[in-house]
Amino acid sequence: MKIALLAGDGIGNEIMREALRVLDVLRSEGLKIETQEALVGGAAYDAHGDPLPDATLKLVQQSDAILFGAIGGPQYDKLPRDKRPEKAILGLRKECDFFANLRPANVFPELADASTLKPEVVSGLDIMIVRELVGDIYFGQPRGITGAAPNREGFNTMRYTEAQIRRILHVGFKTAMARGKRLCSIDKMNVLETTQLWRDIAEEIAPEYPEVQLSHMLVDNCAMQLVRNPRQFDVIVTGNMFGDILSDEASMLTGSIGMLPSASLDANGKGLYEPIHGSAPDIAGKGVANPLAMILSMAMMFRYTFNRTDLAARIESAVRAALATGLRTADIATKTTKPCTTAEMGTAVVKAL
Amino acid sequence: MKIALLAGDGIGNEIMREALRVLDVLRSEGLKIETQEALVGGAAYDAHGDPLPDATLKLVQQSDAILFGAIGGPQYDKLPRDKRPEKAILGLRKECDFFANLRPANVFPELADASTLKPEVVSGLDIMIVRELVGDIYFGQPRGITGAAPNREGFNTMRYTEAQIRRILHVGFKTAMARGKRLCSIDKMNVLETTQLWRDIAEEIAPEYPEVQLSHMLVDNCAMQLVRNPRQFDVIVTGNMFGDILSDEASMLTGSIGMLPSASLDANGKGLYEPIHGSAPDIAGKGVANPLAMILSMAMMFRYTFNRTDLAARIESAVRAALATGLRTADIATKTTKPCTTAEMGTAVVKAL
Ligand SMILES: CC(C)[C@H](C(=O)O)[C@@H](O)C(=O)O
Ligand SMILES: CC(C)[C@H](C(=O)O)[C@@H](O)C(=O)O
Repeated sequence: MKIALLAGDGIGNEIMREALRVLDVLRSEGLKIETQEALVGGAAYDAHGDPLPDATLKLVQQSDAILFGAIGGPQYDKLPRDKRPEKAILGLRKECDFFANLRPANVFPELADASTLKPEVVSGLDIMIVRELVGDIYFGQPRGITGAAPNREGFNTMRYTEAQIRRILHVGFKTAMARGKRLCSIDKMNVLETTQLWRDIAEEIAPEYPEVQLSHMLVDNCAMQLVRNPRQFDVIVTGNMFGDILSDEASMLTGSIGMLPSASLDANGKGLYEPIHGSAPDIAGKGVANPLAMILSMAMMFRYTFNRTDLAARIESAVRAALATGLRTADIATKTTKPCTTAEMGTAVVKAL
Repeated sequence: MKIALLAGDGIGNEIMREALRVLDVLRSEGLKIETQEALVGGAAYDAHGDPLPDATLKLVQQSDAILFGAIGGPQYDKLPRDKRPEKAILGLRKECDFFANLRPANVFPELADASTLKPEVVSGLDIMIVRELVGDIYFGQPRGITGAAPNREGFNTMRYTEAQIRRILHVGFKTAMARGKRLCSIDKMNVLETTQLWRDIAEEIAPEYPEVQLSHMLVDNCAMQLVRNPRQFDVIVTGNMFGDILSDEASMLTGSIGMLPSASLDANGKGLYEPIHGSAPDIAGKGVANPLAMILSMAMMFRYTFNRTDLAARIESAVRAALATGLRTADIATKTTKPCTTAEMGTAVVKAL
């Protein structure tokens, strides 16, 4: 097992450090795993003038999995597009064909009160969002800005081939099979032909999964339903752009985005694992960030890339146990609990392990 | 004043009837207003094989304002795209250049508890979403589906000219001026060039409105922030596609979409006014729909098309007074209140007027 460690910017290093302490425990028990670090995002730009240097890409290509921290910061916002940190994550997804993004949105019983939604609406929430990650308007050609003021024009192309749609829908169906067997496919078929094709193909594939109950929902309605009654969903499958918006909305329903991991997989199970939260420049370097999403991302890595469900489950239990001790980083602390540090939370997980 | 009445499908007729009772009161006081009805949506398709018949479009073109009920129903879902009810609303917007969609999302104090969000998060919520309505990926060319299975490909084009962006941003700034003077412009500039142009132009226009505090937010973050802390927003301005999703999400935060009106305006103040809720085929014809969004849409008409803020305010107060009597249609009823009928709610508003 060979893992690339890409801590990135902001709080990336701090949370990666705690994840590695967890990994060290497993190694001390005999787990054979090689790790190697590389720069990415703003940190790579600062060092090499490129957010995704060749050396980083090469390391990633030679690894079985990537643990990815977070990227970005206000100091990079005015850079030209191809120098910005986001370019690195988009480039990694495309170069490695990480087309299947799995984003759980679940409410930890210990943190049920953290949500802005009423507990009776979100307690027990457990949604898995399957988002296509290398197609759609993110990568479609042609694109750009033409003309000069006052006659400029901007354009981008939403584009999906049948093959791209099929493979992500299959991930959706399979994910549903392994869970509650309900799959809701999101589109905007009443306006966009691309998503009409998406819906048609979903219908065509459905008979291959007779046990899965397939439904369709328009993206605007889904944005509503996530607020109205999020527990109606089991697995949601959708395109890159809608998935970007809906998965962030869904995460926030849980009230604790410092807790949520994600996986981005290629067709062979190789994957990039990252917290869904950002680089949080405002608290970077202070040692107060929540390391649990990073640690849970590592759990996902064991589950999806290395087929070590046992280790994944152990790490997840350790996280639950750490929460059960009452420890809370600032992002999940209530008014009455004193927030703990990043390292204290890491220690609690290591102990529980 | 000449108004076209397009009740449409489902509950459209029932709620329109109550709005017209309110209008009759104003007429009996001497208000000169002409009304004329026309078919639209599924009803027009059933009668004429066309969801937007020429006669309807002509009437709309000759009117100062349109009161629009709701369209759609499951029986029309399998029709070819150009026969579906949605075609009518998209066609009306485009033909009449109703480019500025104003969608308030506000929590009525009487209904604060209807939201799935905690009262301390949403009470007093008062957001105005300004959505561009005749551009973007909704209307961009080229578009379509090419090829045959298994090699089909779908594509749509997000496209905005500088002129289109400028005019909607001006509506955003002016709307902010008339309210809390804070404007949040939503884009996805880290991925989409079209929305980078949007952000650039917003910055260029900002100095013309020195009193307005302009901020920018990425669409995925906005979807989160609406759940995390919706009261941070005053006016939101965004494109057609993002506006579709975010405005529906924002409406649902209030917990009572049966209460929310909308306006779609052209450059001269002519407008189409409609509830944001749909045609609700499941309860159509039962006389239990909430007529208040339709009545409040009429209030918006007096405010934006006819500059009769006095009448708008009177209707809005009458709605508040009707709610204060404790009457609730099923959609806003609590477990302990017996739901009232559409007509009873209409009567209460008429009385309060
Ligand atoms: C950083 C950005 C390009 C990215 C995206 O839009 O995909 C992020 O929002 C995400 O969801 O991973
Ligand atoms: C009916 C549909 C075409 C429409 C849209 O997407 O604009 C609706 O969702 C709306 O928001 O008015």
